Amino acid sequence: MRKIGIIGFGRIGRIHFNTAQKLKNVEIVAVADPFANKMKDVFDQYGVDHYSDDFNEIINNPEIDTVFICSPTDTHANIAIASAKAGKDIFCEKPIDLDINRVEEVLAEVNQAGVAFQVGFNRRFDPNFFKAKEAVLAGDIGDVQVIKITSRDPEAPPLSYVKSSGGIFVDMTIHDFDMARFLAGSEPVEVFAVGDALINKDIKQYDDIDTAIITIKFANGAMAVIDNSRQAAYGYDQRVEVFGNKGMVKCENNTPTQTTLFTNDGVVFDKPLYFFLERYQASFEEELVQFFNALETGQETPVVGQDGLGALLMAIAAKKSLKENRPVCISEIS
Amino acid sequence: MRKIGIIGFGRIGRIHFNTAQKLKNVEIVAVADPFANKMKDVFDQYGVDHYSDDFNEIINNPEIDTVFICSPTDTHANIAIASAKAGKDIFCEKPIDLDINRVEEVLAEVNQAGVAFQVGFNRRFDPNFFKAKEAVLAGDIGDVQVIKITSRDPEAPPLSYVKSSGGIFVDMTIHDFDMARFLAGSEPVEVFAVGDALINKDIKQYDDIDTAIITIKFANGAMAVIDNSRQAAYGYDQRVEVFGNKGMVKCENNTPTQTTLFTNDGVVFDKPLYFFLERYQASFEEELVQFFNALETGQETPVVGQDGLGALLMAIAAKKSLKENRPVCISEIS
Amino acid sequence: MRKIGIIGFGRIGRIHFNTAQKLKNVEIVAVADPFANKMKDVFDQYGVDHYSDDFNEIINNPEIDTVFICSPTDTHANIAIASAKAGKDIFCEKPIDLDINRVEEVLAEVNQAGVAFQVGFNRRFDPNFFKAKEAVLAGDIGDVQVIKITSRDPEAPPLSYVKSSGGIFVDMTIHDFDMARFLAGSEPVEVFAVGDALINKDIKQYDDIDTAIITIKFANGAMAVIDNSRQAAYGYDQRVEVFGNKGMVKCENNTPTQTTLFTNDGVVFDKPLYFFLERYQASFEEELVQFFNALETGQETPVVGQDGLGALLMAIAAKKSLKENRPVCISEIS
Amino acid sequence: MRKIGIIGFGRIGRIHFNTAQKLKNVEIVAVADPFANKMKDVFDQYGVDHYSDDFNEIINNPEIDTVFICSPTDTHANIAIASAKAGKDIFCEKPIDLDINRVEEVLAEVNQAGVAFQVGFNRRFDPNFFKAKEAVLAGDIGDVQVIKITSRDPEAPPLSYVKSSGGIFVDMTIHDFDMARFLAGSEPVEVFAVGDALINKDIKQYDDIDTAIITIKFANGAMAVIDNSRQAAYGYDQRVEVFGNKGMVKCENNTPTQTTLFTNDGVVFDKPLYFFLERYQASFEEELVQFFNALETGQETPVVGQDGLGALLMAIAAKKSLKENRPVCISEIS
Repeated sequence: MRKIGIIGFGRIGRIHFNTAQKLKNVEIVAVADPFANKMKDVFDQYGVDHYSDDFNEIINNPEIDTVFICSPTDTHANIAIASAKAGKDIFCEKPIDLDINRVEEVLAEVNQAGVAFQVGFNRRFDPNFFKAKEAVLAGDIGDVQVIKITSRDPEAPPLSYVKSSGGIFVDMTIHDFDMARFLAGSEPVEVFAVGDALINKDIKQYDDIDTAIITIKFANGAMAVIDNSRQAAYGYDQRVEVFGNKGMVKCENNTPTQTTLFTNDGVVFDKPLYFFLERYQASFEEELVQFFNALETGQETPVVGQDGLGALLMAIAAKKSLKENRPVCISEIS
Repeated sequence: MRKIGIIGFGRIGRIHFNTAQKLKNVEIVAVADPFANKMKDVFDQYGVDHYSDDFNEIINNPEIDTVFICSPTDTHANIAIASAKAGKDIFCEKPIDLDINRVEEVLAEVNQAGVAFQVGFNRRFDPNFFKAKEAVLAGDIGDVQVIKITSRDPEAPPLSYVKSSGGIFVDMTIHDFDMARFLAGSEPVEVFAVGDALINKDIKQYDDIDTAIITIKFANGAMAVIDNSRQAAYGYDQRVEVFGNKGMVKCENNTPTQTTLFTNDGVVFDKPLYFFLERYQASFEEELVQFFNALETGQETPVVGQDGLGALLMAIAAKKSLKENRPVCISEIS
Repeated sequence: MRKIGIIGFGRIGRIHFNTAQKLKNVEIVAVADPFANKMKDVFDQYGVDHYSDDFNEIINNPEIDTVFICSPTDTHANIAIASAKAGKDIFCEKPIDLDINRVEEVLAEVNQAGVAFQVGFNRRFDPNFFKAKEAVLAGDIGDVQVIKITSRDPEAPPLSYVKSSGGIFVDMTIHDFDMARFLAGSEPVEVFAVGDALINKDIKQYDDIDTAIITIKFANGAMAVIDNSRQAAYGYDQRVEVFGNKGMVKCENNTPTQTTLFTNDGVVFDKPLYFFLERYQASFEEELVQFFNALETGQETPVVGQDGLGALLMAIAAKKSLKENRPVCISEIS
Repeated sequence: MRKIGIIGFGRIGRIHFNTAQKLKNVEIVAVADPFANKMKDVFDQYGVDHYSDDFNEIINNPEIDTVFICSPTDTHANIAIASAKAGKDIFCEKPIDLDINRVEEVLAEVNQAGVAFQVGFNRRFDPNFFKAKEAVLAGDIGDVQVIKITSRDPEAPPLSYVKSSGGIFVDMTIHDFDMARFLAGSEPVEVFAVGDALINKDIKQYDDIDTAIITIKFANGAMAVIDNSRQAAYGYDQRVEVFGNKGMVKCENNTPTQTTLFTNDGVVFDKPLYFFLERYQASFEEELVQFFNALETGQETPVVGQDGLGALLMAIAAKKSLKENRPVCISEIS
């Protein structure tokens, strides 16, 4: 029986709470959130019995063996280091930190403590993308040559969010960078980004953009292209293609139904699932299943700290590339 | 808060248990199953605290206001009548009974007791089919003219099951009869069935078949055709089309992913979801949501006793039609 | 070099003229049409040099070795018999005649004369359906168990046409009867039809219907169901499925493009190709290619006289079934 | 009646010959090819009556009003200038020339002579892509933000071809550059290309590559990304997407049939059409229809000389970008 504590009970903390509750051999011992005192209603609604406004109560609780870090990004490193020192296994939301050095400190501490560590790149566990990866691993498409990722949000976030998000590459593309690296099965070498504020010019005041195309070269020769938009009129657009010398594997969007209306006006199918929780529901479940399975079998977790670092390097390189309008080598960053 | 008791804890009882557990304002008070004494492990696994081998303990429990009848078909009527007499609201699995008169007795009793009653035609709540029905109700396809239902199981049941199932029309097509009646929005008038044992001749010894095509005329002029097979090599095939004077609405199968492999050998998509529980998961949830919603608001349940009777009449007419090789009027049956 | 004469220069005659013109080793020597004298403009437009108002000029022309019979149905038999007697190979539009005895006379004459004879069931040569047939022949789906054909016209014909067409089963379903028989690879045994005038009640005055569902049993155990409508709001709906013990082959409609529009209103695909000429263009070409190929190699033509008879028997049985509301054996007809 | 002469009777010359022959009010007067003396068989096969080995016989023929330039690229400019001077309207295959200055000379001459001029960017007339363009023009997707073009050949060309082709950007991507510019409805500003020889390293000896991703910024703010491969194992992959603030229009591949096989092994659909002639058949017809229509009405041709120049500038910029590994401005080229 795994005994877990969840630190941070915002949107993603609640998702993991709900998922963990359904798992066998997992018990949620306590939740910590700095606003815990004002969240009684939420805790009641979710059925949280033990909570605290101090994450140290999780870390110092000897009954707890596994910590979920679901707090704001700028607190991840501190909590992760403290958790590792306390000998807890760790599930940490992405990004680990926005600063490369800080991420490396976390990974060093985790390594030294010998605790398990998984980063929350849930999309790797999406059934569509997972099947694409399996096809790659099975050799169905041969050597990977070109990866294409289209990732568009259904709605642009409020400017207040953008202000402190670290920018599109860190807050949004980070998932796609991880996906590209995951599918390439290789380390990125060089990144080139173009982008602009095509949806809302106001985003520029925060030195951010809302539309981007990023090209990546990998060490094994594979190339990838990611296109992002913060707002697709038709909903959440999440597609991936991997092309190799023996074929291609292609993931289309999920839709609410498979029901189509044929009339004189045309043939109308469903729009993609709009909400990320619905779209990626299965991935949130599978990432925890595989995390706890790794803990139980003593195998490496499916998404390790190095994966968190890898995606972050790509994001920082993309930001630099956009600013300097030139391809940027990963080696310039790390 | 609804307080429910579940009678029968086989496959379908467990499905409803799991679903009801997730619902707010619903509490599962107790479970009854004649084999309860041998099912300790199962009850532990599901987290059932109170159980009994006598369904009367459910019916006589004043704390319980709602009974789920998930026991074998031949016990439905007895339990339903006792439940109604005890003033419990009832969710009853289909078919209510194989005997028309017995079904009518149940409905009379339910009516007299003034309790709510819903029959477990879960497919009406499948998102695909529900969207088709909504399109019909919205007038998107105009007057319904032709309904087509393809319903094929992934594997034939064991002969031991067939032996006592009442035959394909009652054990399998009953869902499709209900769907046709649901989509037609009208009562059936005449049924014609052809069928044969094309998969396994041995089924004939039990006077049953494994492949059938049934044509139905409805009072409002709509026609329907159902084709059934007990075994489709590519999995569970569940499709519906409704054609009207203004258009058509068409439901294709659900698949595990939207991922496709393109190679020199061809372009390969997923097969349909194989297992009925996965395929109809959402429908099992939605049927309970709407059931409890009806109880709460005092509105009529979305699938009433008359619906159970309507589908059964069609099944019996189909059986007679197959035997006598002629179209059979519903009026000959009831 | 094949030298052909075309008798009848209405819509279908012109289609075959255009197709034959493109074929190598085929020369169109002359055209006959009773209204030839009034058709100078049409002949100019098509580039017809030699024409006559008397079909005997085709039949008696020693230069011509092959006759295309594209005239009205009630003239087919006469012309076919005369052509056979003159030793011409024959391509005859369907149906050969509406009277079974008359068809048998034609076939007997053709047989005695030893000339080649092909019936114009072009849909057998449609790439979609042809691929389905190939899958059946290759054993990809195992033994054929259930055939489903949906065949809906984009617009109902004028009542003036219906008046003398012989009814829906002969003028429209005849193609589907042939397709069912073609895909079953077996002779029909029994036919049951339901139908009604759901689009336009006026059609009833001509003892005809506009919507039908026909069930057919074949000698090899396969069953088929055809659903017809004379008017689909979304265009020409031509689909076929063949289900066997090893799988299914399924033909969807052709569309003008593969271009889809995604907006907030939905995801909109093309409607099916509307016009039969576009939809079946490839089939009209392939049926002549295979006809002339059979003539050249001395092999049997791909659609023989018996095929024309087979479909007609089904149509007549369906008509009788509808009238008498009972399944009708083919043996009652022939 | 338009009277045309075709210069160059290789693959593309024959395509235009066949297409022009089918058009009304167009007469092919003569064909010229330097190897005409050795091509008697070909001319017989195509039904070419008048031919010559000297293109001047076309240009000097007063009966001819329109010249088709289908000869090797390095002869285009000479012939075009001579044709313009002779007052002939011109249909010129792409690229006009590989040298920007030479292209500008041609355009200047055409301009001065006041003759009509169309460049053979046939893909603009493909029904799929044309419908996408129409959706853009109709405002269906709002302002164009991101264009994605996937263009992969089914087989790599022989190295002998690559040797003198001018490289992938000029011989293959040129079509995609034109498509991007066409769909953007704006002039390109900057180009960045990555690429490698991933299929066959031998291509590197000719300073060429076989796999590329090209990013383009347009003056109106739109961005485009093209991915190319000279060899897709599953056939000819030709897809386009245009994404705007109101939606997306997406073109999938054409397939030989709409027939799908469902078995226990999976659900298998057709691969894309393999051969460019089949894939783009309709476009070759439509480009001539619109060309002759423009000549007849006196309107501007749908693809003018400036379009040929625009795509070439992008190709040259891409080549420079790849070599120097930096984004290259179009203004650096022209």
